[in-house]
Amino acid sequence: MKRNIYLNKLALKEAQEIFYKSLLKHKLAQPLKGELVSTEDSLGRITAEPVFAKISSPYYQAAAMDGVIVRARDTYQASDSSPLKLRISKDFYFINTGNPIPFGFDAVIKIEDINSVSKIGQREIKRKDITDELTNREESIEEIMIFSPAFPGQHVRSIGEDIVTNQLIIPANQRIRPVDIGALLAGGVNQLLVHKKPKVAVIPTGDELIQPGERIIPGKIIEYNSKIIKGLISELGGEAQVYEIVKDIQGDLKKILLKAALKNDIVVVIAGSSAGSKDFTPEIVKSLGEVLVHGVAIMPGKPTILGIINKTPFIGLPGYPVSAIISAEQFLKPLIFKKLGLTIPKREEIKVHMAHKVVSRLGDEEFLRVKLGNIDGKIMAYPLPRGAGVVTSLVEADALIRIPLFKEGVDFREEVKAELLEDLNRIKNNIIVTGSHDLVLDILRNELQEDISNFNLVSFNVGSMGGLLALKQNMTHLATAHLLDPESGEYNFPYLKKILPQKELIVVNLAFREQGIMVKKGNPKKIKELIDLTREDIKFINRQKGSGTRILLDYLLKKEKINSMDIIGYFQEEFTHLMVASAVAEGNVDAGLGILSAAKTFRLDFIPVAKERYDIIIPKEYYSSLKVQKLLTIIRSEKFKKKILSLGGYDLSQIGKVIEG
Amino acid sequence: MKRNIYLNKLALKEAQEIFYKSLLKHKLAQPLKGELVSTEDSLGRITAEPVFAKISSPYYQAAAMDGVIVRARDTYQASDSSPLKLRISKDFYFINTGNPIPFGFDAVIKIEDINSVSKIGQREIKRKDITDELTNREESIEEIMIFSPAFPGQHVRSIGEDIVTNQLIIPANQRIRPVDIGALLAGGVNQLLVHKKPKVAVIPTGDELIQPGERIIPGKIIEYNSKIIKGLISELGGEAQVYEIVKDIQGDLKKILLKAALKNDIVVVIAGSSAGSKDFTPEIVKSLGEVLVHGVAIMPGKPTILGIINKTPFIGLPGYPVSAIISAEQFLKPLIFKKLGLTIPKREEIKVHMAHKVVSRLGDEEFLRVKLGNIDGKIMAYPLPRGAGVVTSLVEADALIRIPLFKEGVDFREEVKAELLEDLNRIKNNIIVTGSHDLVLDILRNELQEDISNFNLVSFNVGSMGGLLALKQNMTHLATAHLLDPESGEYNFPYLKKILPQKELIVVNLAFREQGIMVKKGNPKKIKELIDLTREDIKFINRQKGSGTRILLDYLLKKEKINSMDIIGYFQEEFTHLMVASAVAEGNVDAGLGILSAAKTFRLDFIPVAKERYDIIIPKEYYSSLKVQKLLTIIRSEKFKKKILSLGGYDLSQIGKVIEG
Repeated sequence: MKRNIYLNKLALKEAQEIFYKSLLKHKLAQPLKGELVSTEDSLGRITAEPVFAKISSPYYQAAAMDGVIVRARDTYQASDSSPLKLRISKDFYFINTGNPIPFGFDAVIKIEDINSVSKIGQREIKRKDITDELTNREESIEEIMIFSPAFPGQHVRSIGEDIVTNQLIIPANQRIRPVDIGALLAGGVNQLLVHKKPKVAVIPTGDELIQPGERIIPGKIIEYNSKIIKGLISELGGEAQVYEIVKDIQGDLKKILLKAALKNDIVVVIAGSSAGSKDFTPEIVKSLGEVLVHGVAIMPGKPTILGIINKTPFIGLPGYPVSAIISAEQFLKPLIFKKLGLTIPKREEIKVHMAHKVVSRLGDEEFLRVKLGNIDGKIMAYPLPRGAGVVTSLVEADALIRIPLFKEGVDFREEVKAELLEDLNRIKNNIIVTGSHDLVLDILRNELQEDISNFNLVSFNVGSMGGLLALKQNMTHLATAHLLDPESGEYNFPYLKKILPQKELIVVNLAFREQGIMVKKGNPKKIKELIDLTREDIKFINRQKGSGTRILLDYLLKKEKINSMDIIGYFQEEFTHLMVASAVAEGNVDAGLGILSAAKTFRLDFIPVAKERYDIIIPKEYYSSLKVQKLLTIIRSEKFKKKILSLGGYDLSQIGKVIEG
Repeated sequence: MKRNIYLNKLALKEAQEIFYKSLLKHKLAQPLKGELVSTEDSLGRITAEPVFAKISSPYYQAAAMDGVIVRARDTYQASDSSPLKLRISKDFYFINTGNPIPFGFDAVIKIEDINSVSKIGQREIKRKDITDELTNREESIEEIMIFSPAFPGQHVRSIGEDIVTNQLIIPANQRIRPVDIGALLAGGVNQLLVHKKPKVAVIPTGDELIQPGERIIPGKIIEYNSKIIKGLISELGGEAQVYEIVKDIQGDLKKILLKAALKNDIVVVIAGSSAGSKDFTPEIVKSLGEVLVHGVAIMPGKPTILGIINKTPFIGLPGYPVSAIISAEQFLKPLIFKKLGLTIPKREEIKVHMAHKVVSRLGDEEFLRVKLGNIDGKIMAYPLPRGAGVVTSLVEADALIRIPLFKEGVDFREEVKAELLEDLNRIKNNIIVTGSHDLVLDILRNELQEDISNFNLVSFNVGSMGGLLALKQNMTHLATAHLLDPESGEYNFPYLKKILPQKELIVVNLAFREQGIMVKKGNPKKIKELIDLTREDIKFINRQKGSGTRILLDYLLKKEKINSMDIIGYFQEEFTHLMVASAVAEGNVDAGLGILSAAKTFRLDFIPVAKERYDIIIPKEYYSSLKVQKLLTIIRSEKFKKKILSLGGYDLSQIGKVIEG
């Protein structure tokens, strides 16, 4: 077994420069040759040369209005006080928008501005009545009256008013939009030269990989990175061909790479580039061509390989999904753009304030995924999970924050730049809820998304106490809590008074819910009550300190005089009800405390131990805001109640009601 | 013949409300039913319901790093001063990233952090040498040394670290991005319900219309509106079916509309809705269903029809391209979004300052297309041609400015809101050049576009004097001029001293060029010199007042003692060389004064009358800016010179040189 260890990783800029300089030297970073496409099919393609009009548009002098065509010099005498009579076929013709101007005529008078002279009796009609008259009897009209002179060219579209023959319609290297198609066709351009789409081979590797849909077992991983990269390539304007999974066989990969390099403009291999013992990729690339870079000082994305195989640029992306995406953004995206003749658009950057301190490794540039929220006019950045394997961190991200190579992290409230991944308007519609998690919040989020108001619920699961602290630090719009005060037996208010004495708050009930011991289906270890958790054959998993569930557990243990030290696993913590339920379901532990809906989700048995109040806590200054009012409207709706009741374990007798402390 | 005159037009908001209220009443504005698609093929589609994970990801406890797997409790004694020896298969196993954690083990130590104990001789190796050792001899390693304890869960990915079974991955009504595809597949979701794409019938009407590629003759118009609308629909997420052109036959359209309404979710007819005498559409719609709105107080876009045919929403778009697009934006786009379950994203709005006064009609909301430029930190808005037929005004537009219903227009320098159509970063890269037009500028624009610098040249052709005035009012970055001073025979400097005495300017020569009389190929009227223009059989076309060419003409006429009143057409004006050349080519006039390249473009004969200097005038404060320096680099390049010389009629002996006044 051989391991590759990349100890000489390069800074991002360095790596990019080495790669592109080498590609430039080998003429591999130029735009691809053009191909002729029909203008109608050119939407989204990039012009490979400037496009000039073949004909003028309009192609002839035309009426720009419906009305009559006249010679302007015949009309100079007309006025309100002495209207002028014009005769059909001699002084005027009826004409519609777009009709060619007859020879010798030069001005259009709008239909609304003329008056007919009825051939029967030469009766004059008031201007107001004229439209009906003309509408109904136009054919029979032989004379008209006009009340003001026309000027030469009046309501006449001249040749080339829009486009003149040989005029530049679209410069080179421009993406064709719908309106461009119109202008091109108007200018007589029915086909045009566009840059070919870069063909990219995407080759996933790893013998632990299975295709989506195949049966998953421990040790196997669903291969979805190639599907993400394919989507990215297609959005960027390239054409991806995803290869079969290569099962780490050195000879196989070599043959496949050689073929792929012949048939494609770029070759991408996923995984096989880190220090694992079966990662042959760098060696194979070296044997087929050149490895320019192995290891980049970015996080995620470090085990990136850049090279050239057979005059084809090669990019080895890391195996973790977030690493693969960040690396593709930094190396694959610019290359596709270069091959399309485009410069890379810069993402919009805004100033944000960190909602938490983040410690980052010196010597790596970190790409931190963050959610954003507008708290009192300041945009706050909430770090999302930083693991390279957490693809949902990118699903949820509103922005990326780059922590430079030699910065140890970012401080709480520090102002930093963020690259937006989402529309700023949408970000400003985020409603930040921090505190205790309940499945009710997921349903609320979805209901809000289905509503036309365009608000988004963003919840951070940091436990009830965490929610109150976030309110205190003005880091959240709302908090959720189910904090039992052991002294008074009262929920939430004692804590609010202690932690947030100055703040005016409104407490609205979301639900009463059952907490219980979650155990495997059929309760194989026959757990009946809390005291059973102290048994030697029982492994427990706890919730984190400060969570309402943890406080509830401690309260119940104290009441029943159970020593927490006697519970195996008391110090092992998870952050949500679902994570605890999942641990039980997977058989890693025998029991955990949580809510019925979480137990039902994982088909666990549930032994109720308490009923508790779960509230949403709203600062008074937000209470009348559109966001909160919309949220309360949904919370109080029958549709929402019905959905929650279907989860089981909830008592909604107080839902949406303001609770007085 | 019957004409429709819509006198009761509605304000935009009113029209939208009437339309949607009626659609809502008939349940025609709801999202379409969902259809199952494979997750891999769902890019860009919209979720029709919330999507929950079917399995957790990771699916099992896995190593997060390459290294060895240990039991944390075995390692607590390890330290730098007393390293601990571990034996393979008993205390540790080698493990790669992604491998499952063997039962009973709970921590990974990274490969970089261990030291092997060679089985031969138990020789100890320094930490620095270890990587090579491990790389080459891993198979034979049976014992390792560690120097610090591992903690439980160290470098272990727990089940559900990314996604927990039943967790909400994506809410309803969300557009699927590449990363979402990854998260869905990771969560075991291999197909999902997305909203069906709204099917839209697009029916062009008008017997003057021909298909792109058919031979064009006066009176015929190339039908390209349907191709623009098709492109828009496809970009919005709908599916357009463009019908054959309907040639205004009342019976035909009726049959086609009925069929289209049966097979589509929305029916769009283009043209046939204005007051022209052959516009039957409103009547036909009335006979088949309901006309809800006919005529909307927007400009362009007034002759819009909204209705319902056979339980299918009907939109009649105006025939002029800009009208059709603006109307589609206001009525078709929101409807497609509603049918996709999406809310309409608001365009980014910024404050801009008007570079010109614009008078707008009371009673119509005008959608003014503007180009934007950043002049000394203020974004200036330059109105583009306002004609509803000028599709290039939308091709060029950076933004739309809405002039409200009851506002008479916008003033010079007035601050107004603009809806961005282009990226603000790109807009800030616009280089505004105002003044005399020359084909050299088109070539310069294209060269700049092909350069990686991402700057865009925007030229406004208002004549040389207009350019100097724009500089004076600080409305442009640069000006172009070829202004002959009749007194001194000198170019540009006398005017600069008079008009811009305070301003420090740098004058760079672009070219010397020939001006001449442009006449039809073969010179059928045998024009030889300027005096021929006074002949009674010669129709002339002039350039606008303030243009260098006009000043040159007047100078030459004075010198040769020719009375301008004797020239037929002296008062008829066009704004560019190409427009004058086009008028001669089309046979509307016999002669015009212009540059050789314009004559060559239209294959005209050319009788030289003067050689003149064409300069670019640069305020000193911009001279060293990146934009101007990039421009000058291109101007001075051999590639650029070669392209201009190929046009003919240019003397480039001074190109790119700073001219001293």
